[in-house]
Amino acid sequence: MELAHKDLISIRDVSPDEISLILDTAGSMKEISDREIKKVPTLRGKTVINLFFEPSTRTRTSFEIAGKRLSADVVNISAGSSSVVKGETLEDTGQNLQAMNPDLIVIRHSSPGAPKILSELLPSSVINAGDGAHEHPTQALLDAFTIRERKKTLSGLTIAIIGDITHSRVARSNIHLLLNMGARVRVSGPRTMVPQFIEELGVTFVPDIRDAVRDADVIMMLRIQMERQNQALFPSVREYSRFFGLNRSILEHARDDVLIMHPGPVNRGIEISPEILDLPYTVILDQVTNGVAVRMALMYLLIGK
Amino acid sequence: MELAHKDLISIRDVSPDEISLILDTAGSMKEISDREIKKVPTLRGKTVINLFFEPSTRTRTSFEIAGKRLSADVVNISAGSSSVVKGETLEDTGQNLQAMNPDLIVIRHSSPGAPKILSELLPSSVINAGDGAHEHPTQALLDAFTIRERKKTLSGLTIAIIGDITHSRVARSNIHLLLNMGARVRVSGPRTMVPQFIEELGVTFVPDIRDAVRDADVIMMLRIQMERQNQALFPSVREYSRFFGLNRSILEHARDDVLIMHPGPVNRGIEISPEILDLPYTVILDQVTNGVAVRMALMYLLIGK
Amino acid sequence: MELAHKDLISIRDVSPDEISLILDTAGSMKEISDREIKKVPTLRGKTVINLFFEPSTRTRTSFEIAGKRLSADVVNISAGSSSVVKGETLEDTGQNLQAMNPDLIVIRHSSPGAPKILSELLPSSVINAGDGAHEHPTQALLDAFTIRERKKTLSGLTIAIIGDITHSRVARSNIHLLLNMGARVRVSGPRTMVPQFIEELGVTFVPDIRDAVRDADVIMMLRIQMERQNQALFPSVREYSRFFGLNRSILEHARDDVLIMHPGPVNRGIEISPEILDLPYTVILDQVTNGVAVRMALMYLLIGK
Repeated sequence: MELAHKDLISIRDVSPDEISLILDTAGSMKEISDREIKKVPTLRGKTVINLFFEPSTRTRTSFEIAGKRLSADVVNISAGSSSVVKGETLEDTGQNLQAMNPDLIVIRHSSPGAPKILSELLPSSVINAGDGAHEHPTQALLDAFTIRERKKTLSGLTIAIIGDITHSRVARSNIHLLLNMGARVRVSGPRTMVPQFIEELGVTFVPDIRDAVRDADVIMMLRIQMERQNQALFPSVREYSRFFGLNRSILEHARDDVLIMHPGPVNRGIEISPEILDLPYTVILDQVTNGVAVRMALMYLLIGK
Repeated sequence: MELAHKDLISIRDVSPDEISLILDTAGSMKEISDREIKKVPTLRGKTVINLFFEPSTRTRTSFEIAGKRLSADVVNISAGSSSVVKGETLEDTGQNLQAMNPDLIVIRHSSPGAPKILSELLPSSVINAGDGAHEHPTQALLDAFTIRERKKTLSGLTIAIIGDITHSRVARSNIHLLLNMGARVRVSGPRTMVPQFIEELGVTFVPDIRDAVRDADVIMMLRIQMERQNQALFPSVREYSRFFGLNRSILEHARDDVLIMHPGPVNRGIEISPEILDLPYTVILDQVTNGVAVRMALMYLLIGK
Repeated sequence: MELAHKDLISIRDVSPDEISLILDTAGSMKEISDREIKKVPTLRGKTVINLFFEPSTRTRTSFEIAGKRLSADVVNISAGSSSVVKGETLEDTGQNLQAMNPDLIVIRHSSPGAPKILSELLPSSVINAGDGAHEHPTQALLDAFTIRERKKTLSGLTIAIIGDITHSRVARSNIHLLLNMGARVRVSGPRTMVPQFIEELGVTFVPDIRDAVRDADVIMMLRIQMERQNQALFPSVREYSRFFGLNRSILEHARDDVLIMHPGPVNRGIEISPEILDLPYTVILDQVTNGVAVRMALMYLLIGK
């Protein structure tokens, strides 16, 4: 089986079978990063461009390492040094990069839809590494991989996603993927941070975090993105943390083996109390490890065959 | 035949035979970027340093991709993070880099002559990737490659270069190369942007853009470099565009098969109307593609033999 | 023989035998950078992360070139683009990087102790590339290599270290290494820049630079770090230079074959008069060349066996 796409823009475009293919492939890729020699020649002679209009060490590094372990040539472009500052349009930037014959462009952009524009314009493959509050499909895939690694399946699980649902591309991509794979999704957070018609997506809104975590198989905490809010959506960080932060007393309402996830970077003491970070079912660092594997899998499936 | 230089600083130093050698070699290199596996071992174990004192995603990326496709180790240094900010002289920066045994230093600098200073000081090869308003020899070479690809020869062609001639290193390098290869060159632009004694170089000054494009084989539009002008050289962008922008009505005065070129990034609607960008004889993206090939050729000829 | 450590944090942790091992290995590594093909497959499939919280082109480039000549995959992270700006702790940054399975993290940080924290937390190897005013062990090793290359031994030599002893991690690391290897160390500089109880370390404080250089085998000039001083420690640069700058008239008090060293970048005319830089026993550029060799040796010894 192969991916029926040249790009990964939205998780909505990916069928359950394709998701399974990506996760299975990531399983093989993960093993490479555990070897003494963490490198295979799969993408030798391929050019991968990391085009980051928003800074993100973590995601850029994950893609860069994924590409290099597959022997691709990886070129980093960050917006600060990009000719975008000279007023070039995204389309022109894309076409100029395309003219250098890359095989894959990984793009992060603050505007929802920017990766889609590139993907429709360019013959090279495009991966959305996060576009505004829209989607972050590789995050959803690495989250799914991490859950499946521990729970063997996604189907039938109950996932509680907690935090700023409205502004979270992580939430959006995860909701689509999880429902698509047969999981049940609950969301919880301040009413101001949950879209009004969220239930139409097929998820349940649970105002109280204690109810949200009850019997859940997985708790996904979202990051409070201080730097992205244009208006105050909650009275104070302290109040947010008191009602929607994850701590031991909230966990008393949850199953003993509930997985605890966070896309990082964690605001310690805000979304999650520090003592939670070291629990055996907290898999936040597994997510980072699996991010490299999932991105290797996508690179292989999109440009390596 | 071989290049008789260790460096490429000014196009004036390169003989017509050497220009032909570079362009012929670039022809072979271009084919590599069209392969499934875009990589050859030619420069394995060579170290290329991209030393950029002015930001330029486009040119830096072109050199980086060129080096990596030849299997060189490429190291990027940008002025922002350079110890130059600590007050080190260019000579000291150069000698310190030389001490790390690079094979090639690609330098972009805002001061005319900076690449020449390095090339005379250092045993390693140096390529000028643009020095102030002085020269940009690799741009002239990729332009020549692009013209030759379409017109088979440079000799006997008429090239119209239009815009801010005075401040353009692209114009300067192209004029030298084109005259050297037997082409005729006309320049046009606001009188304030054309050097007073330009005709002594052997080019014709044509005040009206309509006369400049008449019977020309190639139109080279220059970029208005808003960020580089210290004084207002024209009343307004709108007025500049009205008199010296390329649009369909100007093109009515030109041959049907005139090549339209621009070194990029294009200020859409200023130097060139958007509808011109998609015409079949507009080769702006070919220039970008050929830039990688020409830089691969130069790297091979300077340090690969 | 092997290094008994997974990390290089402080030169105090390294025994004389281990120092000799590192320097001997660097001797073999240096030869690689003189070859036509400057690359060996030793670290193929290893991942090296350059994590620089302080800018330093020179040191970062040296580590990057060292890694690439050993065929490692090198990933650069600079603080400006790091998620550290989002308020992540050093520990979280480290654990997240560790989750991507690097073999070696090279860290430069403005806080003394930051590399040690990482090294204790992470299973991967860590090299301290300079932590505040604390230590810069690879600089001390490359200095030792450079001295040994010229003087055959370190034991029994007299080394004069001159400048801002208090704020210099270079001085601190060198003092430990040199005493450890049986050299004698004198320090000289303005009284305000020399720690009060410096002699307890086993070095001699000599107030007058002319006395400090007399009969010395090596003079190490330190860099005046204008950007790091929080308070004025001397009345003016001119006065500093007059009393503690190295020039021909000071050198008249020294041996003819005294080695002159400086960690760079040199403030010409402040620590060292320009005419000194070209003398036959001035080995400042040798230090840079040897820096690559010493870092290759460390990478090989820490993660290549």
